Amino acid sequence: MTEAGKRKATAASQPLLAFVLIIVVSLAQAGRLLVVPVDGSHWTGVKAVAEELGRRGHSVVVVIPEASLRLGPSKHCTTKVFPVSFTKSTIEAMHSTHMEMFRGNQTFLQWVSVYLKTMSNVIQLMTTTVENLLHNEELISYLRDQNFDALLTDPLMPIGVILAEYLGLPSVYMLRGFPCELYPSVTGCPSPPSFVPRLLTHSTDRMSFGQRLGNTLLSMLEPLLCKAYFWSFDGLASRILQRDVTVVDMMRGASLRLIRYDFTFEFPRPLMPNMVLVGGINCAVRSALPKDLETFVNGSGEHGFVVFTLGSMVSQMPEDKAQCFFEAFRQIPQRVLWRYTGPVPANVPENVKLMKWLPQNDLLGHPKARAFVTHAGTHGIYEGICNAVPMVMLPLFGDQSDNVQRMVVRGVGEMLNIYDITVEQIVTTLNKVINDSSYKDKIMKLSAVHKDRPVEPLDLAVFWTEFVMRHKGADHLRPAAHDLNWIQYHSLDVISLLVVIIVTVVIVIVKSCRFCIRMCFRGKSQKRKKE
Amino acid sequence: MTEAGKRKATAASQPLLAFVLIIVVSLAQAGRLLVVPVDGSHWTGVKAVAEELGRRGHSVVVVIPEASLRLGPSKHCTTKVFPVSFTKSTIEAMHSTHMEMFRGNQTFLQWVSVYLKTMSNVIQLMTTTVENLLHNEELISYLRDQNFDALLTDPLMPIGVILAEYLGLPSVYMLRGFPCELYPSVTGCPSPPSFVPRLLTHSTDRMSFGQRLGNTLLSMLEPLLCKAYFWSFDGLASRILQRDVTVVDMMRGASLRLIRYDFTFEFPRPLMPNMVLVGGINCAVRSALPKDLETFVNGSGEHGFVVFTLGSMVSQMPEDKAQCFFEAFRQIPQRVLWRYTGPVPANVPENVKLMKWLPQNDLLGHPKARAFVTHAGTHGIYEGICNAVPMVMLPLFGDQSDNVQRMVVRGVGEMLNIYDITVEQIVTTLNKVINDSSYKDKIMKLSAVHKDRPVEPLDLAVFWTEFVMRHKGADHLRPAAHDLNWIQYHSLDVISLLVVIIVTVVIVIVKSCRFCIRMCFRGKSQKRKKE
Repeated sequence: MTEAGKRKATAASQPLLAFVLIIVVSLAQAGRLLVVPVDGSHWTGVKAVAEELGRRGHSVVVVIPEASLRLGPSKHCTTKVFPVSFTKSTIEAMHSTHMEMFRGNQTFLQWVSVYLKTMSNVIQLMTTTVENLLHNEELISYLRDQNFDALLTDPLMPIGVILAEYLGLPSVYMLRGFPCELYPSVTGCPSPPSFVPRLLTHSTDRMSFGQRLGNTLLSMLEPLLCKAYFWSFDGLASRILQRDVTVVDMMRGASLRLIRYDFTFEFPRPLMPNMVLVGGINCAVRSALPKDLETFVNGSGEHGFVVFTLGSMVSQMPEDKAQCFFEAFRQIPQRVLWRYTGPVPANVPENVKLMKWLPQNDLLGHPKARAFVTHAGTHGIYEGICNAVPMVMLPLFGDQSDNVQRMVVRGVGEMLNIYDITVEQIVTTLNKVINDSSYKDKIMKLSAVHKDRPVEPLDLAVFWTEFVMRHKGADHLRPAAHDLNWIQYHSLDVISLLVVIIVTVVIVIVKSCRFCIRMCFRGKSQKRKKE
Repeated sequence: MTEAGKRKATAASQPLLAFVLIIVVSLAQAGRLLVVPVDGSHWTGVKAVAEELGRRGHSVVVVIPEASLRLGPSKHCTTKVFPVSFTKSTIEAMHSTHMEMFRGNQTFLQWVSVYLKTMSNVIQLMTTTVENLLHNEELISYLRDQNFDALLTDPLMPIGVILAEYLGLPSVYMLRGFPCELYPSVTGCPSPPSFVPRLLTHSTDRMSFGQRLGNTLLSMLEPLLCKAYFWSFDGLASRILQRDVTVVDMMRGASLRLIRYDFTFEFPRPLMPNMVLVGGINCAVRSALPKDLETFVNGSGEHGFVVFTLGSMVSQMPEDKAQCFFEAFRQIPQRVLWRYTGPVPANVPENVKLMKWLPQNDLLGHPKARAFVTHAGTHGIYEGICNAVPMVMLPLFGDQSDNVQRMVVRGVGEMLNIYDITVEQIVTTLNKVINDSSYKDKIMKLSAVHKDRPVEPLDLAVFWTEFVMRHKGADHLRPAAHDLNWIQYHSLDVISLLVVIIVTVVIVIVKSCRFCIRMCFRGKSQKRKKE
């Protein structure tokens, strides 16, 4: 064998050896992980990590409420279901308030009122869930006996945050950044309002003076918004932990944050060393298409097909809106797969297939997928990017309008306003993103950059969760900023002293000059008097 | 085969397949890289990346001056040597000023004078090197013809920074952060002085009010220091590029920064997405020990051996200092390997082996290595951490005193002051770090954390350099902060407007109140008058 051949053979056997070693080491170091997920699309990434850790031989226990939209048993994990004082229909009824969002011609106050009502309902349901779990003594006692190495949770609902504190476990969060989970007061990470647009501002990272003014004011309000969001949980946590605590204090103690960020979607911003970027983690969750769907999409011919969903929360819309879409889809040559559970009219176009649930990522991964009509939730956007499918976006609430801006500015999709949408707009926009090759070209480039990374997001998330389990935390990544108060963090005490010194020096100089001038003039006038 | 067996077999074949794919894809996508390194220990990491890229099939051209301390040909790379108007002995003579650093009882002014003299010499030599390269028309023309995809450099000497601009190439920097390469004005990355200690302050990330005051003042001076350091290069670059440019402006345009940071050594601080952490990259540079060294260290018995070097720049010291070390080493049971080229006394202890150059990393990796006596350069510190060898640190200049603080605070080493060192101090400190097991325990834990990472630093550096070559940059990671001026970046315009509004409102309110009160009193007094 030549020298080069030998080197190649040795090099080729190295990954094999490394893999065998990883398996052996993993089995020898199998740990115990507690997982506390949040319902809806937030379950996707956490579930993927939990299942992969279970598959790698760790003992993974997932705690879920008996009533939920999407939570359920997961492979390679033990699922512990706890009773709650509400039913699945309570959740569904709550989400029906989303229908109000579709109403056009709302005033700002009406919009705020609907928004606050939705948020209040969500927070009320979360508080009940937290109470139901933490007051379940039998389950808590079982969890305590498990001697977990770490806890994995999504802090959107701080049930896992409080439970980690209660059981004294190091915690790993998976999140995107809403609400207030990426604020400097929680992470110690600076977030300059000059180029880090706040959520709900719909700004990009390049802002006008007016936008920066709004962004700065919002960044000043952040601690208050954060306080308001977690207010009901603070009292609950203090009662359960029997000391005065806030959720923000507890969140500061997270060992590691798996942030669903990737800069093909987000704008570059400062990060902290204990933030691991796993944007697009949901793209790894793939299966083969069911036979009937495969047949339907393959039959779409050269025109291909369009995928249309408005996320896990919204599968209906007012009849007049739905009629708009049916009419529009009738006018395009593509086939359409639509997640829709509303009333079905008699004249559904032949090219439209309505479904209660659709395998979004698997459909977008099909080579005939031509466009993705989406509400612009983060999971959907990442699936659009991964699979390089141009998007038509219909933001409904929360961070969705911000997400849309991020895609529009990159030229990979167009936005439509669901509140005053017309058949013509839908047809024109769909034809534009499908037939104007710039959308496809740009999203293919974006997709190539997004997928060009040294470690897949799922592997990275699994690695760092295992790291926290192995080392009982990640203390070496904890910023000293957490030991500073707000005044110290921003060096306001130091700046105040410097200002006082400068002002004092200026005053002394001015007074001295005045005194000298006065003495000088007095001397002259006395001289004149004497003369 | 069982299901589990099948899965294992499939899983085991995956890395092999992935590796073959990587080789095939690499060969298909072989790129062209220009490397412009800096002399001394800075060459280590850059060389490792250049050689690995060459080995992977890329065409790598390394440009080096004909006179240098450590630069030379590298495997799998084409080396282009350019003539310079100085010789190796000029560099050696320049470094002999380091000997002055050993003088004890220096006043602060003397120390500053020596420091400035050394810096001035270094900058003078660098400017000459830059001029010699950029005025070498033949070489520049050759480089232009190569159509490189990217340029890899260490911006400590901005020769590569200017060359990248001159040839219009996207650039990758490898650096640790001195001087001013990690300042907000260059990277757009906030660096709060409240918990990010500045270089040369000797502070940790937990500072007293006084330390924070000093740190804040130094952070305000940073732009000036940066300007001073690059001053002579700014003029040179403007002349060559025939437009008014500064090195800082050009450095802002780097596509990616490979930062020799790891948080087992550094303190956690904010980072930007285009910073890739490769601290400890030099630990991958390993060879087998030469036979004579292997025999010497293996013969050290249960007591093991001590490695003593003061870095690539310093291999001598005044005779009285050297005598101290010889005497101290006579009193310890360990064998000592010492990189020393000074005058050798007659009575060299039997346990000491003097060498002109020693394979530091390979020696520290030997299981009998008990302690590492070092000047605390970053490369040495990382090799101490990788190999879990407790350290005795003798900082000489530059960032070394800061590095020492980072290790002392973690309990993995002790500092000695070279200026007033005694035999007793050396013996006591060596015995302490060798025999007090807490040092070894702590550095073993630190080493385990340091080495527990998803991708080796060398692979990460290679991946991201290839990324920049593949995509002709990393535009998606470029922060919008680069488009803001200093006032906008810190939102000073927005804050000023808010202050003006607040002050105006307060003044209006106060004036209105005064007016009302006056009117009220006037009414009363008029009433009283009438009465």
